Amino acid sequence: MTKVHVSELVLRDGHQSLIATRMRTEDMLPIAGKLDDAGFWSLEAWGGATFDACVRYLKEDPWERLKKLRKAMPNSQIQMLLRGQNLLGYRHYSDDVVRAFVQKSADNGVDVFRIFDAMNDLRNLKVSIEAVKKVGKHAEGTISYTTSPVHDIPYFVALARELEAFGCDTIAIKDMASLLTPEITGELVKSLRAAIKLPIHLHAHATSGLASMSVLRAVDNGVAIVDGCISSFAEGASLPTTESIVAALKGTEYDTGLDIGKLQEIAAYFREVRKKYWQFESEFTGVDTRVLVNQVPGGMISNLSNQLKEQGALDRMDEVLAEIPRVREDLGFPPLVTPTSQIVGTQAVLNVMTGARYKSITNEVKNYFLGQYGKAPSAVNADIKNLAVGDAKVIECRPADLLDNEMEKLSSEVEGLAKSEEDVLTYAMFPDLAKTFLQERNAGSLKAEPLLTKETAATS
Amino acid sequence: MTKVHVSELVLRDGHQSLIATRMRTEDMLPIAGKLDDAGFWSLEAWGGATFDACVRYLKEDPWERLKKLRKAMPNSQIQMLLRGQNLLGYRHYSDDVVRAFVQKSADNGVDVFRIFDAMNDLRNLKVSIEAVKKVGKHAEGTISYTTSPVHDIPYFVALARELEAFGCDTIAIKDMASLLTPEITGELVKSLRAAIKLPIHLHAHATSGLASMSVLRAVDNGVAIVDGCISSFAEGASLPTTESIVAALKGTEYDTGLDIGKLQEIAAYFREVRKKYWQFESEFTGVDTRVLVNQVPGGMISNLSNQLKEQGALDRMDEVLAEIPRVREDLGFPPLVTPTSQIVGTQAVLNVMTGARYKSITNEVKNYFLGQYGKAPSAVNADIKNLAVGDAKVIECRPADLLDNEMEKLSSEVEGLAKSEEDVLTYAMFPDLAKTFLQERNAGSLKAEPLLTKETAATS
Ligand SMILES: [Co+2]
Ligand SMILES: [Co+2]
Repeated sequence: MTKVHVSELVLRDGHQSLIATRMRTEDMLPIAGKLDDAGFWSLEAWGGATFDACVRYLKEDPWERLKKLRKAMPNSQIQMLLRGQNLLGYRHYSDDVVRAFVQKSADNGVDVFRIFDAMNDLRNLKVSIEAVKKVGKHAEGTISYTTSPVHDIPYFVALARELEAFGCDTIAIKDMASLLTPEITGELVKSLRAAIKLPIHLHAHATSGLASMSVLRAVDNGVAIVDGCISSFAEGASLPTTESIVAALKGTEYDTGLDIGKLQEIAAYFREVRKKYWQFESEFTGVDTRVLVNQVPGGMISNLSNQLKEQGALDRMDEVLAEIPRVREDLGFPPLVTPTSQIVGTQAVLNVMTGARYKSITNEVKNYFLGQYGKAPSAVNADIKNLAVGDAKVIECRPADLLDNEMEKLSSEVEGLAKSEEDVLTYAMFPDLAKTFLQERNAGSLKAEPLLTKETAATS
Repeated sequence: MTKVHVSELVLRDGHQSLIATRMRTEDMLPIAGKLDDAGFWSLEAWGGATFDACVRYLKEDPWERLKKLRKAMPNSQIQMLLRGQNLLGYRHYSDDVVRAFVQKSADNGVDVFRIFDAMNDLRNLKVSIEAVKKVGKHAEGTISYTTSPVHDIPYFVALARELEAFGCDTIAIKDMASLLTPEITGELVKSLRAAIKLPIHLHAHATSGLASMSVLRAVDNGVAIVDGCISSFAEGASLPTTESIVAALKGTEYDTGLDIGKLQEIAAYFREVRKKYWQFESEFTGVDTRVLVNQVPGGMISNLSNQLKEQGALDRMDEVLAEIPRVREDLGFPPLVTPTSQIVGTQAVLNVMTGARYKSITNEVKNYFLGQYGKAPSAVNADIKNLAVGDAKVIECRPADLLDNEMEKLSSEVEGLAKSEEDVLTYAMFPDLAKTFLQERNAGSLKAEPLLTKETAATS
């Protein structure tokens, strides 16, 4: 028996992928007991976009959510998704902020830290991994999977070896764009298993309809843990269905040991919850294989489509889709995930809409060429780089090496407003949002965005 | 290279499973050229519930649909689903009707006949298979997959051997209830391949979220053809996604040879078509694994739920779900598919609602015990049978052996109304419906049920 373990992601990625990260803590707590008892390897419940959505839309204190979940799920490993040196924000933070954030996350209940970098620049992961190990928690080093001439199996194996050397406890393969095929998954897991000793954890989005097949091939090749989402928040842009994975392996040598009947109770609960958030549903929640043809993730296509619609230029979509892989090549083939997906997408739209490639160049692309996001996976286009930043000095070191400690400065900026180090960290992540949030919280006037009922929607 | 072939089912099972079989011919013809060019092994486009829906709701002549599709897809094999001696109706027909139906289906465009019986009583398939071979077309003998103490792999292998001996060209495994797991699929395909020479064709519904994994294991074990549905009509109660199957096998030794880009054009077309039929959508179209726990197919649960709701007894659902496997056992474990799913479901509801099992017994259950549907897979409960039919004489022979030829009689019943043998066959399938249909057609007053627009629905 080589039991396969399952991580359940309904509390984080499930609602992030399907209802714009809008699930409220009040809808998590009633089922937390059953989630806690189910026997998952971990429950991913924090980080990613949930912190942002709490502060921005739900007017919930994300740290309070974590504490409540911790209390409600005492027997489970709570997992969070952390963007390395970006933490949960959209810039690089100084190392003291990274350390403080990890410490407070651990203090308040996080057991497993899944840590990734959009560029796979491991220098951006090192400090957070060290911080996690220092507080005695589980560090999961993450490979952001993508395809390109440089992203072959030896490339990913080399990353995994370094993550192992960093002291990680497990290695995650993160396929946010749903690019993995069952065949590649099998080869990748097999190669990783041959090269490193750490257990492998697979995170494969279901968008292209390949994920459950990839899970099967990963299991065939010795994956230790697989991510799923309970059926009512699974498939489409989310993850493959937890119950189906459990059923597929039941009675085989890889049996997960989970009880499908208990999982169905959880699924039934969330099926009702999902209805409450209908206004955030996509029009089409089925399989979308476009990423396999034009390399552009489904979520990015939706965003671009909205952007173009606002400009009355939806008819330029095909040109933009063709331009994206070219911009990505100019930038040295970064994986397309926050923030690189936005950087590449916005520049591609500009290249199409202005009628001349790089006639106008965004600040983000300039910063990218200046090395502010880290090292590109392969050589960038020298001509375009020259056009963007001329001979300005490029950062060769780890970007955060240029940052002074900032916890003290951040604390002083919100003195009076912040009641705890957690508050300071919230401010560090989203300065403007957090100021308003903390003011309203202190004044007792926090109010979540309203949810539409079908009736109010029909009459408005 | 062991190329795997793909059958595309959007024109039949896709809309039957997801929008109550309501797709109109006018929405099929504009894309027929692209479907014809895609390179599918077959396009299932007729039979099943489509004939009924044409006559009942769409007021289309199903034979005209077939002719139009034949003309629009000259290079493809058109496939139909046929319920053996039941043809497309809900009773056993005499052999001359079966032969006439097969002849006319072939004349008008069907190339591949997929033939099944709800009981797996092969005597109910024999005449239609012979008729198909006689008109020189492809006969696909079908195993209706289910689970029970008698439905093990040797049982299915024995069925397949007999179907091979009948002269079938291929063998289909039909998993209408979504019960197949990847492991069982692998074993079943392997065992069939070892026992018979015919190519194996897999039809596995996606309801429980296992189908794409089962497809992968079937491919590993030498399946020749797999069924899929284009993404916009796939997954949930329908079949796994065609594009995903193609992508999963691309570049492997099993490469289907199909072009994903072309398939995406077809998917985009049907995504728009589906919107037109929004009123027939289920509330929840995701994965539903309940069948794996209580053995009751998802579609049956929905029907029962409606039945109980009408009686104000939705709170008895759990009792009904527990009763169904018991009734099924009393009946000798028939697979649950039309018409046995209705027979078992209705009796289970009665057993719960009357407060005493078999206090009231339906005529269908009585007929079942009398052998009118064929031979049960295993011994029926003798006490219940006695309660239902006493010592009435049970049919031991093939039920249709008791039927006299009836084409002449049927023809005379619709003399004047019917303009062709096809019309007589339409009348044979659905006598009352067809009379009205033919009258209106002859009078030029056929009118399809109206489709709701979102506007008219909101104001009504
Ligand atoms: Co994810
Ligand atoms: Co079917």
